[in-house]
Amino acid sequence: MASETIKTSQLEMMGQLAKTAETQLSQLSNQVRNQGLKVMAEALMTHTEDILKANQIDLDNATDLKASFVDRLTLTVDRIKAMAEGMQQVAQLPDPIGSVDKMWQNDAGLMIGKQRVPLGVIGIIFEARPNVTADASALAFKSGNAVLLRGGKEAIKTNIAISDVLREALASIDVDENAIQLVHDTSHETANEMMALTGYLDVLIPRGGRGLIQRVVTTAKVPVIETGAGNCHIYVDQYAELQMAVDITVNAKVQRPSVCNAAEKLVIHSAVADDYLPVIAAALADQGVQLRGDERARAIVPSMVAATDADWDEEYNDLIMAVKVVDSEDEAIAHINAHNTKHSEAIITDNYQNGQQFLKQIDAACVYINASTRFTDGFEFGFGAEIGISTQKLHARGPMGLHELTSTKYIIYGEGQVRQ
Amino acid sequence: MASETIKTSQLEMMGQLAKTAETQLSQLSNQVRNQGLKVMAEALMTHTEDILKANQIDLDNATDLKASFVDRLTLTVDRIKAMAEGMQQVAQLPDPIGSVDKMWQNDAGLMIGKQRVPLGVIGIIFEARPNVTADASALAFKSGNAVLLRGGKEAIKTNIAISDVLREALASIDVDENAIQLVHDTSHETANEMMALTGYLDVLIPRGGRGLIQRVVTTAKVPVIETGAGNCHIYVDQYAELQMAVDITVNAKVQRPSVCNAAEKLVIHSAVADDYLPVIAAALADQGVQLRGDERARAIVPSMVAATDADWDEEYNDLIMAVKVVDSEDEAIAHINAHNTKHSEAIITDNYQNGQQFLKQIDAACVYINASTRFTDGFEFGFGAEIGISTQKLHARGPMGLHELTSTKYIIYGEGQVRQ
Repeated sequence: MASETIKTSQLEMMGQLAKTAETQLSQLSNQVRNQGLKVMAEALMTHTEDILKANQIDLDNATDLKASFVDRLTLTVDRIKAMAEGMQQVAQLPDPIGSVDKMWQNDAGLMIGKQRVPLGVIGIIFEARPNVTADASALAFKSGNAVLLRGGKEAIKTNIAISDVLREALASIDVDENAIQLVHDTSHETANEMMALTGYLDVLIPRGGRGLIQRVVTTAKVPVIETGAGNCHIYVDQYAELQMAVDITVNAKVQRPSVCNAAEKLVIHSAVADDYLPVIAAALADQGVQLRGDERARAIVPSMVAATDADWDEEYNDLIMAVKVVDSEDEAIAHINAHNTKHSEAIITDNYQNGQQFLKQIDAACVYINASTRFTDGFEFGFGAEIGISTQKLHARGPMGLHELTSTKYIIYGEGQVRQ
Repeated sequence: MASETIKTSQLEMMGQLAKTAETQLSQLSNQVRNQGLKVMAEALMTHTEDILKANQIDLDNATDLKASFVDRLTLTVDRIKAMAEGMQQVAQLPDPIGSVDKMWQNDAGLMIGKQRVPLGVIGIIFEARPNVTADASALAFKSGNAVLLRGGKEAIKTNIAISDVLREALASIDVDENAIQLVHDTSHETANEMMALTGYLDVLIPRGGRGLIQRVVTTAKVPVIETGAGNCHIYVDQYAELQMAVDITVNAKVQRPSVCNAAEKLVIHSAVADDYLPVIAAALADQGVQLRGDERARAIVPSMVAATDADWDEEYNDLIMAVKVVDSEDEAIAHINAHNTKHSEAIITDNYQNGQQFLKQIDAACVYINASTRFTDGFEFGFGAEIGISTQKLHARGPMGLHELTSTKYIIYGEGQVRQ
């Protein structure tokens, strides 16, 4: 019990330090924030050896972890350089703070302006990738927010090394180093306490696999922005061009199958299934994709594995795709809305009405006509950055860039008005 | 345990019905939504007698409640008429749904539009005022959202009568009546279960006193928009005009002392305190305001009660005001940021720099130069409606109108693009 009390007060102390830092941060000019990003980027380069040494300790301790996990954990000279370059790029983005979205005069003659301000203190809970320490810090700092980071225990030495370098760099230009704080205690209890740190954290963003995100969403008292899960569909309409259907389906499935905007399901209209499905299936099989079909799909392409009910809700993040044949666009839309994770959905069609209907009726963060779902990404959207992809409807939906790390305040210019 | 299982499944069933209704609602044209508001308003008028009879049962049961509580619970012919007129007015507001905030072409040539869509299903937990049943339903319906209402047990018969009238009216024009659902079970357990109804509720908005709001904020698993608490300050700068300082302070304090945007604290610069404070204090005393001063304020106006440390954090919602003398604007800003509830703050000054500094450095939803904090209100801001005043930074901050009951989705027009 005593140790829990101490842990709680440590986290609360970090929360207080973050609040104090935030007061300074919110008043810094864009010029100073960009200077901070520049000195942090330079410090990462200068301290590459120290960071690699710390990373080697984590890697030495990672003997019983999966190869893919170890790959995410591993830093190299090039990966550290990429982190530094990422910080430089964030510095070059437009200032997300201070702009007035709109300003109007009300009936009493008050000039009311809605101004962009930082959210405040952002909590990030993440897993193995130590680059999140630098990437999330850069985005938070650019948008005037303090950040409280809690990474996985497997990367703790690396995360400490990176955050120390960043904090020291900020201190060197007289910016409060507590703008960036890393929770050194990687116990589950501390993570749970962090999720309950209302009064200090304005928002919590989990970065990682489905398990982590679900744990944060169901546990946290602090407002959470849910990111990630993507059970994305490609619907090949009866008015689709075959070649476009092949190209988009293959791209959405195989260009990077492990990520959330990769397509997991193919829904195809029965009017073209006989002609198109064998061609699409062959193109996917060429790329090593395992296909799982419903009965009608397997009647056309017998080599498909039989899909079960569970397939329609599963996000494979792998070279697997389930296929369903439908008799109408309405059936396709109903199926997608019933099973999708509200991430990204696409229709392939040359029919104007069908495209418009799909845009209107599909409930998802991003709805496409004739394009790959792989475009759901902050960089592809032109935001110049991405902190995650929101699949919820509150505050932010879809790719989140710097804008989504801001709030607003109303600034009101009066001349002595009182309310009648 | 058995009864709890049944309650849970009842609420979940209501959640499912709300989701189904939401699918229809999100596709209704503004014209049909306005027609719904019109028939609901007419039905309220037609069924005035039934609603008053139900209200009388609640009033008969309210024998041991405070007079102010009974007043909030009481309906009259005029109050029902006001509810109906409110619905008609909401029908006349611009459609918050469907507009595309911005649209651009990305590097790959995709046309990406950010379109306003309903939030989905909104939960409202409220206390004694039965008019919330009609008001919240109107705003939710106009913005294409389904609503799940849970009011206080003291108003249950009235709330059932009103919601039945509204549901019947919707059904009469073939709109899914489950767009509006009232939780009939007013137990605390059911309220707690509703706060955990993730997967069905997209957001929960508590309407009522500080106790209710804090209970919802600390209990809910569903995302909450925190509303209400207002420990608002008037800062009389050394460059304030005396008459303006008197007028705004009196208006902000006494025009309606029970509400969240009323001022609770007066902070005054020492350079003008000797001259101004006696005049302001006399004007407030004339209106029956009890003043509680710090030592320096009491040295100038000895009739003030001594303020304690607790006073600086308290929201009186009454004819009480605490007064603090400061030696600089910096001290005023530091005091306000340390004690305010991030609601509404005002500076009275004729000095340009001091006004700008206050706008920049005060952390609150609404920051005023030379105007009463009482203007923080959806109607005064020109939104034509108000569901509450958000004091948090996520999703919505300040007065919330129809716009704040919406989310967005990205609609993307492609020509076969795939990601490189």
